[in-house]
Amino acid sequence: MKFNISDRMSNVKGSAIREIFKVLADPEIISLAGGNPAPELFPNEEMAETAYKVLKENPVAALQYGITEGYTPLRNSVKALLKERENIDEEFNETIIVTGGQQGIELAVKCLVNEGDGVIVEEPSFVGALNTFRSYGANLIGVPLEDDGMNIDQLKKAIKENKNIKIIYTIPTFQNPSGITMSVEKRKALYEIAKENNIAIIEDNPYGELVFDGEKSPTIKSMDKDGVVIYCSSFSKVLAPGMRVGFVCAHKDIIGKMVVAKQVSDVHTPVITQIMADEYIKRPDFSQHIEDIRKLYAHKCSVMLEAIEKHFPKQITHTVPRGGLFIWCDLNGDYNMDEIAKYCTSKKVACVPGSAFMVDQDKKCSAFRLNYSTVTDEKIKAGIKILGDVFNEIIK
Amino acid sequence: MKFNISDRMSNVKGSAIREIFKVLADPEIISLAGGNPAPELFPNEEMAETAYKVLKENPVAALQYGITEGYTPLRNSVKALLKERENIDEEFNETIIVTGGQQGIELAVKCLVNEGDGVIVEEPSFVGALNTFRSYGANLIGVPLEDDGMNIDQLKKAIKENKNIKIIYTIPTFQNPSGITMSVEKRKALYEIAKENNIAIIEDNPYGELVFDGEKSPTIKSMDKDGVVIYCSSFSKVLAPGMRVGFVCAHKDIIGKMVVAKQVSDVHTPVITQIMADEYIKRPDFSQHIEDIRKLYAHKCSVMLEAIEKHFPKQITHTVPRGGLFIWCDLNGDYNMDEIAKYCTSKKVACVPGSAFMVDQDKKCSAFRLNYSTVTDEKIKAGIKILGDVFNEIIK
Repeated sequence: MKFNISDRMSNVKGSAIREIFKVLADPEIISLAGGNPAPELFPNEEMAETAYKVLKENPVAALQYGITEGYTPLRNSVKALLKERENIDEEFNETIIVTGGQQGIELAVKCLVNEGDGVIVEEPSFVGALNTFRSYGANLIGVPLEDDGMNIDQLKKAIKENKNIKIIYTIPTFQNPSGITMSVEKRKALYEIAKENNIAIIEDNPYGELVFDGEKSPTIKSMDKDGVVIYCSSFSKVLAPGMRVGFVCAHKDIIGKMVVAKQVSDVHTPVITQIMADEYIKRPDFSQHIEDIRKLYAHKCSVMLEAIEKHFPKQITHTVPRGGLFIWCDLNGDYNMDEIAKYCTSKKVACVPGSAFMVDQDKKCSAFRLNYSTVTDEKIKAGIKILGDVFNEIIK
Repeated sequence: MKFNISDRMSNVKGSAIREIFKVLADPEIISLAGGNPAPELFPNEEMAETAYKVLKENPVAALQYGITEGYTPLRNSVKALLKERENIDEEFNETIIVTGGQQGIELAVKCLVNEGDGVIVEEPSFVGALNTFRSYGANLIGVPLEDDGMNIDQLKKAIKENKNIKIIYTIPTFQNPSGITMSVEKRKALYEIAKENNIAIIEDNPYGELVFDGEKSPTIKSMDKDGVVIYCSSFSKVLAPGMRVGFVCAHKDIIGKMVVAKQVSDVHTPVITQIMADEYIKRPDFSQHIEDIRKLYAHKCSVMLEAIEKHFPKQITHTVPRGGLFIWCDLNGDYNMDEIAKYCTSKKVACVPGSAFMVDQDKKCSAFRLNYSTVTDEKIKAGIKILGDVFNEIIK
């Protein structure tokens, strides 16, 4: 038996990051390659008690088939949260609970993109989203990121030069992998351009709450008076990613179709984890929990930035994130970070080479991503020192 | 903003069964339309205690990101279970944990079927699978079911007459919606035909354990020496469907690709529910739990069959299942069950018209599906009596 893989899936390789994870089994390696939230902030006790309570008091609701749209009390909590914390409140919106934010992106592209249709992405962008678009045969069109978000002239050019563009995918706040936040002006411009051209925006906002100074940028969805924006987020970064509870808020017409797509995918998100999430976000200390996460990441990020300033050659540029999990660095020159990252691994430090986040993954790339969320201060310092030694050796 | 829905999703309507579910909010309605397992057999206490224990003892494993392939101890338990209970034991096989059996089907079709490629299905067949195939633009080809499974001559004819057939989808044991079980001879024939024509078989086996007399039929996968069969099942019918824990066992080459497809879909199945399932199936009383379910469904099925014999006009034929959740009935004539089912609902009994399970859902259909798993004996008797009255009124 010889399986003939479909064209759409022939386009997709496993994530390069996952390949790197394989070497991380070595306990001596300092991994700055991950993207996991800090486990010391998981509310273990509360989750154990909530799970027990839910299954004791309401076992049938938690164990029987649920509805595809999601557990109704959680959908209501999400609506309240979006109104309160993000100023998202249009009547035409509807929400669906999904099995992690990634599924929201997948359902949207499945419903909107024919094979060969265009999807505009920031470059670099989140590898999970890029692969989802590839897995539906989308034509990926990269628009370069600047320090304040997508290059708007390049965006206009991309729309002019390409046909059948259906989606602009953006992570406007604390972008993965760059850590960059899009300015309010650019958010407005992007929204208007999408609206004029009848292109949907997927606004992916998993990191928005992780703002170091507490001053949140307005979401593009909060500006959406026309139903242009499909807003995807999750509880992975503010509660726990292993639970796989995410949500999408968008115009009810597209949500209705996404519900049908979800029905044929996993029928519904597990109910227990939905109820657990609902119970947790209703707790009076949920806001304080987010504050604790913000403080921890702000601290770890500052430790890493300080070490970078101390140990990296000046030629290497880096972003200075205002929140989130990532710093993006660039060697700026004719360097191949795929090779260099392998060499760094032999020196017991892992980072992700920038090519993984590009539309053309085979093109030589001198940039790389660093993560600070799960590493101790000491390991951040030691890891950056080792990387600095490598770079000083390479850059003459 | 006007969303243009992709061609693949334009083909898919929401499940007709879900539409029927909307009227079921009326507590006076006796629903023989469902397909839910009996909630009185959910192991509520055990699940509450397991969830608490898991989150107390191993919170980081349960709450942090997991691997796409699934929680390793559960994968090992599934392998052991398949060997022990189904005689599935080839070296070339690999398993992946999925978010309910439905996701196994979706990942397989996404990886194997280009738009326009053929998928052969039993007719009638499971509406969730049909819609998944439609959602990837597959060309559905129906092969009629006989009392001992697919019509093999028609299967050969379908393969001869259609190009690019990639999958034969079958539920050989206690089929949904018919309750029919494929004979061992037909299983062998189907396997050989698929092998000769290099077509993958998806063997969907969610009901196999629910065998009334305890005499299980051999799975097609147990005959698979060539890696032809993609075997999908779940814990939805032997544990609890709301947990959404299923699994696929197939040749490692296709599993490898399905892992990539799952990575871009929901990254991984929630870890808590995987650990809970693993803990439960390792319990010494798991076999006894399955026995209890078998006994209950055998009883309920016999109550329904007795009532059918008593109240339905003789012209109406019905299947006599040896297990599972469903009985299939046919009025045998120029009747439109879509209309009649609506009339039955007005008489406060719901069943699912057969058209929902057909390749061409718009074709007039005189058959319908009955379910007995969640209804009390009294309601089964009362419901069948009311249906009998309606049919006696219609059939002159």
